Amino acid sequence: MDSTISDLEQIFHPRSVSIIGASSREGSFGRMFLEGLIRIGFREIYPIHPRETELLGLRAYQSIKDIPYDVDVAILMTPPDSTLQVVQDCAEKGMKGIIVFTAGFGEKGAEGKKIEQEICRVASTKNIRVIGPNSIGIYCPTSKLLTFPQGLMHDITTEGGPVGSFSHSGSFVDYLTYILAKKGIRFSKVVSCGNECDLNAVDFLEYFGQDKQTEIIISYLEGIKDGRRFFQLAREISKEKPIIIWKGGATELGARAAMSHTGALAGAKLVWDAMFEQAGIISVRSFEEIVDCLFCLYYLPLPKGRRIAVVAGMGGTNVGTTDNCIELGLEMARLSDLTLERLAQLLPPVGTSVGNPADIGVATLVAPNLYGETLKLLSEDENVDMLLAISDPGRPCTQSIVEAAKVIEKPLAVTLFALPEFAVEEYAFLAQNKIAAFGDAKRAVAALAKVSKYASYSVNS
Amino acid sequence: MDSTISDLEQIFHPRSVSIIGASSREGSFGRMFLEGLIRIGFREIYPIHPRETELLGLRAYQSIKDIPYDVDVAILMTPPDSTLQVVQDCAEKGMKGIIVFTAGFGEKGAEGKKIEQEICRVASTKNIRVIGPNSIGIYCPTSKLLTFPQGLMHDITTEGGPVGSFSHSGSFVDYLTYILAKKGIRFSKVVSCGNECDLNAVDFLEYFGQDKQTEIIISYLEGIKDGRRFFQLAREISKEKPIIIWKGGATELGARAAMSHTGALAGAKLVWDAMFEQAGIISVRSFEEIVDCLFCLYYLPLPKGRRIAVVAGMGGTNVGTTDNCIELGLEMARLSDLTLERLAQLLPPVGTSVGNPADIGVATLVAPNLYGETLKLLSEDENVDMLLAISDPGRPCTQSIVEAAKVIEKPLAVTLFALPEFAVEEYAFLAQNKIAAFGDAKRAVAALAKVSKYASYSVNS
Repeated sequence: MDSTISDLEQIFHPRSVSIIGASSREGSFGRMFLEGLIRIGFREIYPIHPRETELLGLRAYQSIKDIPYDVDVAILMTPPDSTLQVVQDCAEKGMKGIIVFTAGFGEKGAEGKKIEQEICRVASTKNIRVIGPNSIGIYCPTSKLLTFPQGLMHDITTEGGPVGSFSHSGSFVDYLTYILAKKGIRFSKVVSCGNECDLNAVDFLEYFGQDKQTEIIISYLEGIKDGRRFFQLAREISKEKPIIIWKGGATELGARAAMSHTGALAGAKLVWDAMFEQAGIISVRSFEEIVDCLFCLYYLPLPKGRRIAVVAGMGGTNVGTTDNCIELGLEMARLSDLTLERLAQLLPPVGTSVGNPADIGVATLVAPNLYGETLKLLSEDENVDMLLAISDPGRPCTQSIVEAAKVIEKPLAVTLFALPEFAVEEYAFLAQNKIAAFGDAKRAVAALAKVSKYASYSVNS
Repeated sequence: MDSTISDLEQIFHPRSVSIIGASSREGSFGRMFLEGLIRIGFREIYPIHPRETELLGLRAYQSIKDIPYDVDVAILMTPPDSTLQVVQDCAEKGMKGIIVFTAGFGEKGAEGKKIEQEICRVASTKNIRVIGPNSIGIYCPTSKLLTFPQGLMHDITTEGGPVGSFSHSGSFVDYLTYILAKKGIRFSKVVSCGNECDLNAVDFLEYFGQDKQTEIIISYLEGIKDGRRFFQLAREISKEKPIIIWKGGATELGARAAMSHTGALAGAKLVWDAMFEQAGIISVRSFEEIVDCLFCLYYLPLPKGRRIAVVAGMGGTNVGTTDNCIELGLEMARLSDLTLERLAQLLPPVGTSVGNPADIGVATLVAPNLYGETLKLLSEDENVDMLLAISDPGRPCTQSIVEAAKVIEKPLAVTLFALPEFAVEEYAFLAQNKIAAFGDAKRAVAALAKVSKYASYSVNS
């Protein structure tokens, strides 16, 4: 195993951690981290505090060097001025990795950059790997290890799963994990790259590529230190695991904002777009798009082609959705004569339209089971690669779709003709039944189109 | 007043209506309409039924000709075969307008088209105007007149407001009104055009253009019978009232779907796009985009320019949002030196970024008031035309923004870094305070960009 990968393996699964800058003061990050780690059930925690000898019931030490036990990972939350000294202490103590939460280095200018390099150099003399600085750390549910503020405040799950993530924005992974965990998504390991004085996005991509637990990779990125290597890796990994990336700093001004954020230089948009295309990366431009694509990948089989069949009880939505399918890169499936015949038998003669899209009409208000019946029928047509249902928000319609989904083997996306905040129970019901549900038909189509494109990359590579 | 406009004025404000095809049978549309109109408080209703003499407590008649009182509007729900005969009865009785709910005419082929034309001809001999066939009718809250299924089932409000809407999809306006009314949006008049054998989209646009109660116009359209006249009208109306249009059937296949939906021929996309541009129309491609643009127009003043200032507590989101602003047609405001100085004083030195976007950092977890303070400060810069806040979903942050919004006179859009279904209370709180809130930053930016473009059209025309 590559040494960086085995280093990361150890950092993601430490037996003991030390929080340098732990505190019992209400409202401080030092307390949030310590309290959170205790609550989530991590066992061996050594808090470091300049004066206290006990914090929240745990024995505290003045220096990491005073701890009489082995420490695998240290989390540094001390002020920027003292960070280098603390890293020197860590080096003397010896450990696998240091996570530097403290910010105020490379992103602030050349002088901070120098200190970062020194942090990395000091650590490397003792083969210690560094994540950060300016990193909110990691979330490894199966290790009960978590240093993300939202997750700590909201008691995120320690159940593991197939999604791995690394990000140049700490708040991005913080919210991604917190919100998606609520939605039933489970993670393998998640890491905030920070300023990358040592371990960087390329290392994390490589790690997730070989990690058996990780099946889907999500990333928010700004600049990448070794673009060539990154894309070489991505091209290989994409063949087996989808990689969703939100590249920030695509425009010149966005790049300037990135500069003051993590100090990384973000490259020209056209180059990035071409690289993403060639590497089979699913490229997105918002949090919502990430969630939408992830839902397709997490809940649905990959489509075998780009041919979609659309079912709705609303004619106008069907027409507009057909436009969106075509413009976003899908094909409207040509239904077989048999399917058309069966559909004509199934649907009432008036207020409906036999074809693709299948307009099952306002009649669903009194015959909601038409949703499920129509979907099952269309799924049996070999010209159909995937299905989209645009349903009335009422429970009888969603119930009919959920029942049909149990026997449909092709990807089926569902959206309700309602703002999600007014169909909270219906969306929750769909989520419980592991249905990929979207807040708007255009969003479902956009995600299916991106995932279909990825599917053809992974099959053809 | 143009006679079509005065005809419509009378149809939107009838003193009496007759429901031909009313029923007391549970689950039938005939009952839904009758029961709904009674419940909403419409006073003078005459149900027509072939056999019953009483329906839900109202005297029923066998034919409209038997009613001994004046009828202003008849709503036809009879089967397609008998529709022409019923229209002849209506013509003999005499009235202002007929709404034909029944479908199965022009959208089914040439024969149906002929019957439609005959319906129109018969009605016109007695100066009766026709809406439909294949129309779900109208919603005029101040008249307590409503024939939309969702609205009837969910007791939609009878409070009027500034939004007028007409649509080639009945289900579109049905859901639009039902869902947006829940969100606090209020309507003047809403109409489902149906197959337009007589009154059509051009007439409705003209009506809403001159209607004093209507300040914002929303439409879902497929083909338009007199495109030249439509765009002439739109160009004039747009100078004073924004018009949001979702044009279905933009692609060839979409146009084919439209053909089987309302029988209208939808034109080439490029021509439409150019016409929309010239007429200052806000063009959208999904229900969600309509809602987003409407929120900007309904809750916010028009921006005076395209220069936006962005505030977030999440660096990565700031960078990605800067990209989206630039790519979707906004400019990142160049903050004045004074603003930069004041910002530097306000924000903590570490983990933040002074500039536009203003990254107010993870510190908001402990100092949520930084959101409001930063927004107020930026709004005072004359280089800023509009503001976007991307906030933590917690109540202290939204509270701070709501307080700031009270004194900020420039357009302020808000989005929470959370899926809306997990921030239901926060979004409701923002809505109560008449804040334009969006489910995702990219959606807020897209809507602000469209509305800014419209604002410059209305100012320059």
